[in-house]
Amino acid sequence: MKKHIAFLLWAFLPFLASAQQAIFNRITIQSPEVNADNSVTIRYNGAKAKSVQVTGDFLENGAVANLAENKDGIWEYTSAPLAPELYSYSLIVDGLKINDPNNIAYSRDVASITNTFIISKEKGDKGDLYRVNRVPHGSIRRMWYHSATLGMDRKLTVYTPAGYESSNKKYPVFYLLHGAGGDEEAWMTLGRTSQVLDNLIAQGKAEPMIVVMTNGNAWAEAAPGESPEGFTVPSMRATKQAMEGGFELHFPEVISFIEKNFRTYTDKKHRAIAGLSMGSMHSLNISKYYADKFHYVGLFSGARIGDRENTTCPVYVNFDAQMAKLFANKPALYFLACGKTDNAKKGMDSLKAYLDEHGYPCEYMETDGGHIWRNWRVYLSVFAPRLFK
Amino acid sequence: MKKHIAFLLWAFLPFLASAQQAIFNRITIQSPEVNADNSVTIRYNGAKAKSVQVTGDFLENGAVANLAENKDGIWEYTSAPLAPELYSYSLIVDGLKINDPNNIAYSRDVASITNTFIISKEKGDKGDLYRVNRVPHGSIRRMWYHSATLGMDRKLTVYTPAGYESSNKKYPVFYLLHGAGGDEEAWMTLGRTSQVLDNLIAQGKAEPMIVVMTNGNAWAEAAPGESPEGFTVPSMRATKQAMEGGFELHFPEVISFIEKNFRTYTDKKHRAIAGLSMGSMHSLNISKYYADKFHYVGLFSGARIGDRENTTCPVYVNFDAQMAKLFANKPALYFLACGKTDNAKKGMDSLKAYLDEHGYPCEYMETDGGHIWRNWRVYLSVFAPRLFK
Repeated sequence: MKKHIAFLLWAFLPFLASAQQAIFNRITIQSPEVNADNSVTIRYNGAKAKSVQVTGDFLENGAVANLAENKDGIWEYTSAPLAPELYSYSLIVDGLKINDPNNIAYSRDVASITNTFIISKEKGDKGDLYRVNRVPHGSIRRMWYHSATLGMDRKLTVYTPAGYESSNKKYPVFYLLHGAGGDEEAWMTLGRTSQVLDNLIAQGKAEPMIVVMTNGNAWAEAAPGESPEGFTVPSMRATKQAMEGGFELHFPEVISFIEKNFRTYTDKKHRAIAGLSMGSMHSLNISKYYADKFHYVGLFSGARIGDRENTTCPVYVNFDAQMAKLFANKPALYFLACGKTDNAKKGMDSLKAYLDEHGYPCEYMETDGGHIWRNWRVYLSVFAPRLFK
Repeated sequence: MKKHIAFLLWAFLPFLASAQQAIFNRITIQSPEVNADNSVTIRYNGAKAKSVQVTGDFLENGAVANLAENKDGIWEYTSAPLAPELYSYSLIVDGLKINDPNNIAYSRDVASITNTFIISKEKGDKGDLYRVNRVPHGSIRRMWYHSATLGMDRKLTVYTPAGYESSNKKYPVFYLLHGAGGDEEAWMTLGRTSQVLDNLIAQGKAEPMIVVMTNGNAWAEAAPGESPEGFTVPSMRATKQAMEGGFELHFPEVISFIEKNFRTYTDKKHRAIAGLSMGSMHSLNISKYYADKFHYVGLFSGARIGDRENTTCPVYVNFDAQMAKLFANKPALYFLACGKTDNAKKGMDSLKAYLDEHGYPCEYMETDGGHIWRNWRVYLSVFAPRLFK
């Protein structure tokens, strides 16, 4: 066996060593390390550093913890035992925020790139749901569709459940929309959509379904780096299309593309739509404007009632009439979810009051915390099992 | 319009601001900025920093350049005009290597996460080939297949050319293999495979084809973070399967999966295989062991001639007989490529001498530089247009 290892080293190590010259990094220590008691140990190799800290959402809101240095120049911090969750963090070395050079798990959230780790205590908990488990896996497709109304080719992400390729069955479709600053990748990375769906379906908790993740920025062809615009920094550019319902008005093109290219049911009972923040407002608008298209509607942390001033865009006027038409069609589920300290809570509460006042049936889920992915993953995990049953 | 912008700000900015609390980053300045003369300006906002440097492959091998500070605490460095290329770099702030906090373009190469930018001078140059252009785009699928021989589900990445979904045509298949430390994502990120293929096909230089990118680590189910093992640090673990031809012996399972799930031709003339480094050796082995399967073979920076000692694995013995059988089947192209300073050059030269000695037709492309992605992107760009014509 020794000889075999020697062969491998001979064969590949010299290549790797030279592959990227000065900028090539090597993993030197294990960080993070999830311990048996579900605490996490963060390490940093830095004999020259004067102070090393960690900041992240596994600490109290906004908190920073100090790493302690041992005699070998390895800095270390061990947290309290943590609840099951996907956590994000960064290191702070001598006052400078950096990514953990020993952790290749990271996600981009708008313009922030942070390291991540997952805590899971037992089968079926949140961490377990967000992990890749040894279950049948769906496929992910990144595809381009043409939008005649927006005048461009646009990218979207499609999850098809395990078994899609090996069967001739038709599937229901769940359209899942991101928030401002996000794109067609947002629900895939911090949202963990493919892991959540794989696991829920494998556990028999959710029906096999197709999930379509669009780009909700009507001015954009695709996520940063995926479009001809290059790596434009995500922003909330106010363009004509963004302000005047461009995304909502073009949405039938998405539905047509999906129903043409995948084996889907094409009736209202087999369509769901949900979104977070800006995507929640998009879902609210789309579901009422196309009042006979969606049987399930999920609004996560974003709502607005009434007509928008200074616009003639058909999406933003006749709010009362559109809502009346939607509920006349008796959607199977109209689901609101929001964090108790979420900046969107006021809008969500107003919408709930409006629905109650008009006798429109809905459900309202309230969680701790604010306008964060931790909540949106929970809402997805609760909403998806309610669909198509 | 002002009112509209105000609405957007009201609606989303407070949410964004609170979204990730302490770890949320904001883009403050433009870095990098590609200038009209194809120089690049790197900037860093750091009034507290004592020294700011940049290191990257757009500088001389291993070099580091100093940024200069202006009165506002913005540090800046402008390079010489650069040749068309995809470049990688990192910042060094007070001696600490960090990613550029104002650039969301980055790639992971084994364990290194570095920022990237692309320089292009004109239509058709290297930078243009690596960019997303306004051309018809193929689709990318991440799928799982079952390997009975390796006893696991495994992930692979498949590029289908523009038009695949809207036609009933059959397509040829190009199997493209990564190197040690890589995975089924390696050719997609620093290799820019989907951009290169989209652009070459749009320019009429390459035939529309399916490209299959496998995971060549026989012990692994998928890339770090994509498998049940979690974010295991990439390494060259020497396992039974890795050492004894596990990947090569299971390869027919990949071909079966692809030909079952895609509209492909299924004859030798419509199959190609190529790889870099470890993937080059895999391609060498697979093409000779299954001597009637591939009409086009590309070996980029990795070769080994003769029988392996201390093994009875059928892939690694009877080298002469297998090569004789392969060339008796008259492959359309047997293509070698290597950098002049590549550590793999000696092996490639030996193989070239062996081929010449036996009268086996081949082509040998030599480029400047070493064992780097810059070369492998070029080899892909040269090899792909030669296929299926």
